[in-house]
Amino acid sequence: MSWLTATYLVTCAERDVAARAAAIASEQSVECPLEAITEQRILDEIVARVASIEPAGPGKFRVEVAIAAQTIGANPVQFINMVFGNASLWDDVAFVDLAVPEDVLALFPGPRHGVAGIRRLLGVTGRALTNAAMKPQGLHVPELAAMCRTFALAGVDMIKDDHGIDDQPYSPFAERVRACQAAIAAATAATGKTALYAPNLIGTPRVLRERARIARDEGVRAVLIAPMLVGLPAFFDLVDEFPDFVYLAHPSFGGARHIAPELLFGRLLRLFGSDAVIFVNVGGRFGYTREMCAALAAGARAPWGTLRPTLPVPAGGMRLERVEELLDFYGPDSMLLIGGNLLIEADRVLERTREFVDRVAAHRFAT
Amino acid sequence: MSWLTATYLVTCAERDVAARAAAIASEQSVECPLEAITEQRILDEIVARVASIEPAGPGKFRVEVAIAAQTIGANPVQFINMVFGNASLWDDVAFVDLAVPEDVLALFPGPRHGVAGIRRLLGVTGRALTNAAMKPQGLHVPELAAMCRTFALAGVDMIKDDHGIDDQPYSPFAERVRACQAAIAAATAATGKTALYAPNLIGTPRVLRERARIARDEGVRAVLIAPMLVGLPAFFDLVDEFPDFVYLAHPSFGGARHIAPELLFGRLLRLFGSDAVIFVNVGGRFGYTREMCAALAAGARAPWGTLRPTLPVPAGGMRLERVEELLDFYGPDSMLLIGGNLLIEADRVLERTREFVDRVAAHRFAT
Repeated sequence: MSWLTATYLVTCAERDVAARAAAIASEQSVECPLEAITEQRILDEIVARVASIEPAGPGKFRVEVAIAAQTIGANPVQFINMVFGNASLWDDVAFVDLAVPEDVLALFPGPRHGVAGIRRLLGVTGRALTNAAMKPQGLHVPELAAMCRTFALAGVDMIKDDHGIDDQPYSPFAERVRACQAAIAAATAATGKTALYAPNLIGTPRVLRERARIARDEGVRAVLIAPMLVGLPAFFDLVDEFPDFVYLAHPSFGGARHIAPELLFGRLLRLFGSDAVIFVNVGGRFGYTREMCAALAAGARAPWGTLRPTLPVPAGGMRLERVEELLDFYGPDSMLLIGGNLLIEADRVLERTREFVDRVAAHRFAT
Repeated sequence: MSWLTATYLVTCAERDVAARAAAIASEQSVECPLEAITEQRILDEIVARVASIEPAGPGKFRVEVAIAAQTIGANPVQFINMVFGNASLWDDVAFVDLAVPEDVLALFPGPRHGVAGIRRLLGVTGRALTNAAMKPQGLHVPELAAMCRTFALAGVDMIKDDHGIDDQPYSPFAERVRACQAAIAAATAATGKTALYAPNLIGTPRVLRERARIARDEGVRAVLIAPMLVGLPAFFDLVDEFPDFVYLAHPSFGGARHIAPELLFGRLLRLFGSDAVIFVNVGGRFGYTREMCAALAAGARAPWGTLRPTLPVPAGGMRLERVEELLDFYGPDSMLLIGGNLLIEADRVLERTREFVDRVAAHRFAT
């Protein structure tokens, strides 16, 4: 059996760190109370384990957690889910390091060109490379192509779209790529020095694929892409489908640590099409406040253009005893999610679940 | 012309807030010094504007920024890029609110079913809904199906996979979906009460589509999906392609605010296939330290299984004067990216760029 090790920086008091570490191990594997697990195999092979706890400055600890490779299977997205899925929702936990066994690493071909491949394409050794950006967005295609030409004539190695340049009417993608690639080719013919134009790919997976085809057909060899913005999984598929491109990763949206939960879960996910949205409710295993939860639910259901309301689903360590309180707080247009708490008496799951259902059905809402 | 308003909570001293607000407006639109912009049209129609600044508690301010709808065009992913792309990288800026004009809102059909659609499918009115989760991962398919049946017999409305359940050998997706859907159907036949089984969809866009087809073919009407984990853009495409499902959004990876930048940019993006990775360098417009940048570059290039090295691309407000310092710090296997600083003298872009190229070429690295 193979295990990977994820390391987290935990901010807490020393007396709490063992419990916090155990909570991370549970959250990143079985995500339920250990007493709900009746099979020894699952306890031995599936539940993640705290491997070490080390002080890391005042009120901080490095916690290593061993995660079973079989929980990841052969899915690179499940890899992210298992190393930093729910734990990402804790304010006191940062994901800081990672050791991956060979069988998991084999899921990832990684860069198809990398440093040596880029140098080979450019014919450059023994010095650092140069990169310039076409700015600002709003420029028309002939102006962008002229800027591209200027940079290439000056000898820059890679010339990229600014990351705000997409497919806006002022510089449509296909027209821009053709013009900029031609500008580069003309400059290269004049100087004898290779340059790479990297257009910005941005969109849903279908759009990425369409644009990648356009770029490839124009002879483009490098692309700019923001993996956290287009999504790591879509990025992974694109690299696999278009391995000939050099991929230049842009950090946009890469610090999405600062979206207010009520905005992300209450409104952005509704905008993107969620019919119901699970969030970590106040008083459970996570740290949201009553005010955040109320605002989140309000955002999910409030009138917003022609968008249908989204059903709030408070969760994250809810218990049977709290049903009435949750219903009074969220009202009838909500869906209560109880996870491990239904399972804590292994021979009474049906009874506990019936109690859950009955309490919800019997509740009288204040009018 | 139409503008949307994004609201940010900025943590800073009162004397700095006007400058911070202006920096956000620049970063989320043209991302270059205003003196590099020679066209009045771009200044009038493209550059974002600070609309208001209000105190929001000690050392905190609510900053409203008006962002031109035309910078978003018709692309929902570009929408995220423009409201919280690079600004996500600032520790003192949180994205907290949003007002979207009708033409931008029209890009988003939003939930296809929403609250009313879910109630209709379940035939439930006048009470809150109930949701239970099958846990822990590691259980075999017959055990999961039995749990599904128990929950359905107890009268639960929606029964979801735990979000760690993927397609692992212990509970393969196709086999599990068939068994759980059949368990629900049998329970419904016995009780007369409808229940929805929501299997967990997790994977790259191609995998999501394959699994959605399997689920649809088995008669599944609801799915669990973590939009921040699979990526908002892939989620958007999936909802568009499979509008008949009720989408239950899971928060996993939704607080990815706490991945150390050196891990995310230096290693995770390499794992996912970046050949070169742009990051916000020390001393520019963002707050990374020298130590973080050194660790990031080291992670990008260090031996790691059979993965090719990734080229570090320090950026984010780099200036010509810093070329030698950057080269000494990052060494020859790096690519320097200078953006707006090449453009600040509108009639000398070629000269400044040549100087950039020449200084990089002339640099002698310490041996």
